[in-house]
Amino acid sequence: MPLLQRYSWYHTMLGMKSSKFLLLLLIIYVSVNLVFAGIYYMIGVEHLAGIERSHNLKEFSEVFFFSTQTFTTVGYGRISPTGFMTSAVSTFEAFLGLLSFAIATGLFYGRFSRPQAFIKFSEQALVSPYKEGAALMFRMAPYKNNLLSEAEVKLTLAMRVDENGKQVNRFFTLPAEIDRLNSFSLSWTIVHALNESSPLYGFSEEEFTYTELELMIFVKAFDEVFSNTVVARWSYVTQEFKWGARFSPMFFPDESGRHTVLDLSQLNSHSAADIPVQRNAG
Amino acid sequence: MPLLQRYSWYHTMLGMKSSKFLLLLLIIYVSVNLVFAGIYYMIGVEHLAGIERSHNLKEFSEVFFFSTQTFTTVGYGRISPTGFMTSAVSTFEAFLGLLSFAIATGLFYGRFSRPQAFIKFSEQALVSPYKEGAALMFRMAPYKNNLLSEAEVKLTLAMRVDENGKQVNRFFTLPAEIDRLNSFSLSWTIVHALNESSPLYGFSEEEFTYTELELMIFVKAFDEVFSNTVVARWSYVTQEFKWGARFSPMFFPDESGRHTVLDLSQLNSHSAADIPVQRNAG
Amino acid sequence: MPLLQRYSWYHTMLGMKSSKFLLLLLIIYVSVNLVFAGIYYMIGVEHLAGIERSHNLKEFSEVFFFSTQTFTTVGYGRISPTGFMTSAVSTFEAFLGLLSFAIATGLFYGRFSRPQAFIKFSEQALVSPYKEGAALMFRMAPYKNNLLSEAEVKLTLAMRVDENGKQVNRFFTLPAEIDRLNSFSLSWTIVHALNESSPLYGFSEEEFTYTELELMIFVKAFDEVFSNTVVARWSYVTQEFKWGARFSPMFFPDESGRHTVLDLSQLNSHSAADIPVQRNAG
Amino acid sequence: MPLLQRYSWYHTMLGMKSSKFLLLLLIIYVSVNLVFAGIYYMIGVEHLAGIERSHNLKEFSEVFFFSTQTFTTVGYGRISPTGFMTSAVSTFEAFLGLLSFAIATGLFYGRFSRPQAFIKFSEQALVSPYKEGAALMFRMAPYKNNLLSEAEVKLTLAMRVDENGKQVNRFFTLPAEIDRLNSFSLSWTIVHALNESSPLYGFSEEEFTYTELELMIFVKAFDEVFSNTVVARWSYVTQEFKWGARFSPMFFPDESGRHTVLDLSQLNSHSAADIPVQRNAG
Repeated sequence: MPLLQRYSWYHTMLGMKSSKFLLLLLIIYVSVNLVFAGIYYMIGVEHLAGIERSHNLKEFSEVFFFSTQTFTTVGYGRISPTGFMTSAVSTFEAFLGLLSFAIATGLFYGRFSRPQAFIKFSEQALVSPYKEGAALMFRMAPYKNNLLSEAEVKLTLAMRVDENGKQVNRFFTLPAEIDRLNSFSLSWTIVHALNESSPLYGFSEEEFTYTELELMIFVKAFDEVFSNTVVARWSYVTQEFKWGARFSPMFFPDESGRHTVLDLSQLNSHSAADIPVQRNAG
Repeated sequence: MPLLQRYSWYHTMLGMKSSKFLLLLLIIYVSVNLVFAGIYYMIGVEHLAGIERSHNLKEFSEVFFFSTQTFTTVGYGRISPTGFMTSAVSTFEAFLGLLSFAIATGLFYGRFSRPQAFIKFSEQALVSPYKEGAALMFRMAPYKNNLLSEAEVKLTLAMRVDENGKQVNRFFTLPAEIDRLNSFSLSWTIVHALNESSPLYGFSEEEFTYTELELMIFVKAFDEVFSNTVVARWSYVTQEFKWGARFSPMFFPDESGRHTVLDLSQLNSHSAADIPVQRNAG
Repeated sequence: MPLLQRYSWYHTMLGMKSSKFLLLLLIIYVSVNLVFAGIYYMIGVEHLAGIERSHNLKEFSEVFFFSTQTFTTVGYGRISPTGFMTSAVSTFEAFLGLLSFAIATGLFYGRFSRPQAFIKFSEQALVSPYKEGAALMFRMAPYKNNLLSEAEVKLTLAMRVDENGKQVNRFFTLPAEIDRLNSFSLSWTIVHALNESSPLYGFSEEEFTYTELELMIFVKAFDEVFSNTVVARWSYVTQEFKWGARFSPMFFPDESGRHTVLDLSQLNSHSAADIPVQRNAG
Repeated sequence: MPLLQRYSWYHTMLGMKSSKFLLLLLIIYVSVNLVFAGIYYMIGVEHLAGIERSHNLKEFSEVFFFSTQTFTTVGYGRISPTGFMTSAVSTFEAFLGLLSFAIATGLFYGRFSRPQAFIKFSEQALVSPYKEGAALMFRMAPYKNNLLSEAEVKLTLAMRVDENGKQVNRFFTLPAEIDRLNSFSLSWTIVHALNESSPLYGFSEEEFTYTELELMIFVKAFDEVFSNTVVARWSYVTQEFKWGARFSPMFFPDESGRHTVLDLSQLNSHSAADIPVQRNAG
């Protein structure tokens, strides 16, 4: 299967960083005009009215600027095509220029309007005291001025286990205490109780440290600004689990003391658990 | 987390009022051209063919107009670049101009095509006599020429209650008598019966006046014009509840007397209930 | 509520016929340029280089063409602004022109890309013999080169009935024998059996003729070309029900005799039922 | 029903190959300008300033280039309209040019942004040993840099069977062992066990070869790049079923030996089953 077919340039253009994207457009713009300038130059400078004859480089730069004025359809007209060939090429260049900007328009709009879930996750997942036992917890919060509703979260745990002497990956779906929110506008702490039905039930701190784990999170929500479903993914690996800690509050009274504000910078803030994490298993 | 990253300028541009949005575009247009005019002016007016030499201000205004003619790609050509630097800058400006209008195109389309639920809610929620008891009622109606189908409504009540001497917020999901409509094109009265299963069961007029309440409404529907799911939110707080009133009809015969029309201005129209609101609790 | 707010011009533009839409754009184009021509004319023709002084009408037409050359950013330059005011107005006009075409681009795209279910319904709904009894049947088929999958249909019957001497409208949801199709690419005959659970059970031909009925159909499907959910609505009223008829086949062998083709023109084709419609009730 | 109405030109433009689409645009561009050149030529070359009078063909080509400079809004101005008719036509042409590029912009964007499921299917479906019996298996994998989640697959089998001496098509929904994936980023082998509940239960190799079968596959997933639901269809007919084979692995260690990579070219790779396919029926 040819690489070109396996590679969606549109997807790539959409995912590219803004600065890189703009630079790419500029490079294409200059390159295309260099090519056209070359063609006009080869046809002959004498077929362009308005160019003063001088040394080669100056003439080429004049031809280049004529090309850009054609490609962008500025067309000042100080320099203009007179011969048939030059006119024909500029006819094609103006057409190509407009199509290029049509494509650029589509790319810009595609980039802007691409629905994305702007959700930030805590850097760590904590094993915290919870009810009579313990729970795995992590936090997430939307961080842009968009509105998420009907959010739902799915947790999958990949664990490397020894089975008959062979290391194999096992996958488990982990239930969360609350896995659905009608409105997701503030922080949301996902809690997976480490009870009998959890594959992590009875894990000690050491087991959390040495077992190869990956907790994969899939969040789906309806973004009211885009009026579209958006999804986000995140994952925590073994080193990102922290035993015996509790998330600290993220809400603080504002300066006036009358309102409560969410401090996003505290998303990962936690402290050692005040009581030991009681292992559920005896 | 840097502010810029937390702030989606596209979301902002989409949510902005039309007049403000157009003004902003105009300001950007003038500013960018002032900057370019400054650059051309610094390079030297003598590199622009067609400008009559006169006093500074007049020259600058000529340069400014040359800049706008380049940015918009009008390019009359009365004034045109001759020197290398001036030509190079105008080459870049025309490119920037086209990209700017490409972005503007995307923004306009994004603003138009953003699916929105154009639903108007009654200003008040009424506590009306209903069956043998009472019910909380409010009305809503779509107010634009769009078609909503498969509408559903979700009610959440936030109530400030005293629990062991502490004021806490409690959230309840309130069922509605009809919470789903196949076709939502006229007014829809949402009815939450204040029966035994309601957290507001047995509330007196005083309790409705003094308890801190917020009834949050979430409506979701499929808009057939946008072919997209749209959502609307609304809420009623304590002062917006009205005890012992009934909504008045919104449908009236038209002038010919043969058709019935919905009068949207009557959405909130209500009168005192003819019979007292019977408190459900004894 | 002001009319303007109740009226979505974007929805209107999207729903408008193509010919009307293009005519409207042309009218706007001419009108705007007449206004700008008026402004330039009032400022003074002498501020436009290249206009030969002659009688008023000719001058005005020259100014008008200058305006269109500015609005469309053609800018030949034979006529070009010289004075400050004229230049400033043309600066604004070129800006406005580009924004207008940006908006037009959005409208065109909105019109094209608006997902629509191109489904044609039979003109009549038939009461046909079915199993041991009778059934209400109608047909529908997609008629454009699009692909519908996961189609579902919902039937609602509105019937005017006499209740305690008052004429009231009653609504019933009618089940269909098959109300869901994985792939809806050919014709689909919807069958509602007139059995005991149907509100139309035991209706005679006369009752079908004299009862005020409206069968409302709501079809929802996923269009694979638009990758979007599309909906279609249709309805049959009393006069459009036909007693004792059967739909004729819509599939015929093609000229080569080897393939079967769907003949859309036969969508409504039916013949008298070969056996009498047996009234289900005794 | 007129053909034009049955034919969605927008759908056609979206489905067309890129090369064909661009060629079509170019043909339209040249044709429209030939028509306008004809109109200007008939009005008279003398109404265009800047054209040197010469022989007919040269004059026509000059008029043609003036037309393209108007249509693309380049407007160098070396040639410019002077008479009323010529000016009026060019006013209309520039308008038409901009609208055409507005439409082209919409088409480009429609083509790019059209959500598509880029999924490749194995060329054959295998009848492989499975558990104690056999199973029908095929493989699929996404082949572009997009992310699919919440994938689900539906299998429908069409079989030509003899019923009372008549050949009829029967349709069956086949269950798959796993018909849903939270994340579909690598290959996915769909397994339909040929057990008692399968309509293919007890089929011998001969029956698989001679029965007219078509296995239709419908895949639906959420594409995270487009944030949209996408669908793919595929089907296997009798000749594409292969008895007694097993799919070979598609995952191989990379050069460094530390990572595992998916080799898409192996999607259809299979070998003869090591054990005979045990017919489930005795």
